[in-house]
Amino acid sequence: MKQVAKLTLEDAKTMMAGAEAKAKEIGIDMDIAIVDDGGNLMLFQRMDNARITSISIAIDKAFTAGGARRSTKFYGDLIKNNGPVFGIHTSNQGRFCVVGGGLPIFTNDNQILGGIGCSSGSPEQDTEVSQAGINALSGVFTV
Amino acid sequence: MKQVAKLTLEDAKTMMAGAEAKAKEIGIDMDIAIVDDGGNLMLFQRMDNARITSISIAIDKAFTAGGARRSTKFYGDLIKNNGPVFGIHTSNQGRFCVVGGGLPIFTNDNQILGGIGCSSGSPEQDTEVSQAGINALSGVFTV
Amino acid sequence: MKQVAKLTLEDAKTMMAGAEAKAKEIGIDMDIAIVDDGGNLMLFQRMDNARITSISIAIDKAFTAGGARRSTKFYGDLIKNNGPVFGIHTSNQGRFCVVGGGLPIFTNDNQILGGIGCSSGSPEQDTEVSQAGINALSGVFTV
Amino acid sequence: MKQVAKLTLEDAKTMMAGAEAKAKEIGIDMDIAIVDDGGNLMLFQRMDNARITSISIAIDKAFTAGGARRSTKFYGDLIKNNGPVFGIHTSNQGRFCVVGGGLPIFTNDNQILGGIGCSSGSPEQDTEVSQAGINALSGVFTV
Repeated sequence: MKQVAKLTLEDAKTMMAGAEAKAKEIGIDMDIAIVDDGGNLMLFQRMDNARITSISIAIDKAFTAGGARRSTKFYGDLIKNNGPVFGIHTSNQGRFCVVGGGLPIFTNDNQILGGIGCSSGSPEQDTEVSQAGINALSGVFTV
Repeated sequence: MKQVAKLTLEDAKTMMAGAEAKAKEIGIDMDIAIVDDGGNLMLFQRMDNARITSISIAIDKAFTAGGARRSTKFYGDLIKNNGPVFGIHTSNQGRFCVVGGGLPIFTNDNQILGGIGCSSGSPEQDTEVSQAGINALSGVFTV
Repeated sequence: MKQVAKLTLEDAKTMMAGAEAKAKEIGIDMDIAIVDDGGNLMLFQRMDNARITSISIAIDKAFTAGGARRSTKFYGDLIKNNGPVFGIHTSNQGRFCVVGGGLPIFTNDNQILGGIGCSSGSPEQDTEVSQAGINALSGVFTV
Repeated sequence: MKQVAKLTLEDAKTMMAGAEAKAKEIGIDMDIAIVDDGGNLMLFQRMDNARITSISIAIDKAFTAGGARRSTKFYGDLIKNNGPVFGIHTSNQGRFCVVGGGLPIFTNDNQILGGIGCSSGSPEQDTEVSQAGINALSGVFTV
């Protein structure tokens, strides 16, 4: 056996508050999801004007980023222009999301903790809000 | 066209806080989900020791109660002993949950607003926590 | 954040060897699966005469036992005779397996590590083989 | 009726050991899957730092290569630049994987035996590890 770090619900709430504050600041209601290192949902919220199709997109962005340990944009860039992993987006029952907005969450010593994903804005806005969530929690970073 | 009442994220947060407080009071970490009148997830949280298999059960209880406008226990009772709706539990891709713990949310003048579902305790405990969520918001009731 | 114990692949291989030895001893080729605390597959093997329909049954037994932190038989007993959680078996996209043969894996100080599931024999035989897997690893127990 | 060659679990273990040794040699923990001629999982293992999103990708690469009797890279090349089979990647419920890393396994006299798939590295690394698995078993080859 080995010992690993895990996010608590309290940690997830701290990130959610940071993400929500940023979404309000830029004026875009978002669906926001946080998953643990096993890809399992910890916390989700849909702001009042967020899209309903973005519920699963936000959850899948968090799942993909946490599970693959890269931003969803990283994979999106890799598949475009006939890139080497084109097709990866249909894996995991179509849950492998390659649209920007999902970020992995690492401890400062590089252990994977999970992922955060946002949807309803542009991929850049979604990423900005996810990043704000990560910034709100001390001891973690993203790539 | 018609006018309908809709839950806000603020309303859902009020219910979530009430449910979480009750879960802590009875000492059972739960997965707790709230959906709107379209069956779409508004808010979800998993307490630290809640079961991961209960993530989708909580969401499906909220979905079923809000969508069918009855408690999930009501349907569970109806299907037992070869009851008249036996088989309904496989509908909606198996999401029609007939285990107690899901409650519909109505306005005081009987408009459906959505559902709340809890999972990780016994069906009675799950129902108690969902009920506490509804009790925390004024202007709504359940059946 | 919190610190938790995690199974290594080496741990899973030790359990798999114990389970396989027991399956051979009782003369039943089995599908055997081990998942981690997030319900994600770590190790799987199908013995030569094991059933192909039992591939996903074994995986789902491990998923259910690890995720719900109880044996799959425990849930099977609870749903029979119009029991209180009848219907739970359609949850998690039908993956919530209530057939005996899946066991949760805990550290000796009660942290959940995952689950092991077997299929191709009777539920009793499947459980016996899963138990042998757990017995093969020191520092863990099941309920 | 006809006689066909079939992989045994022992054969699959030999390939798995060869693949694992290569993954260690290049320093990338991988998810590694082997399926039979029916596309059904025989053996799977996830090395400690392999990605959880790569569990189903590895299984689907093995499934695709064994079922379609071509490497997954072959299909990836065919669909790029608006190639003739564009769209095939969404078939089989999205399981038709066109990312390199899956190889078919043939007997030396050209009977299909199944497939092997790896995921967590680059497509080239994944393919290299799958190839090492096939090289470890005598009497078989890939294309």
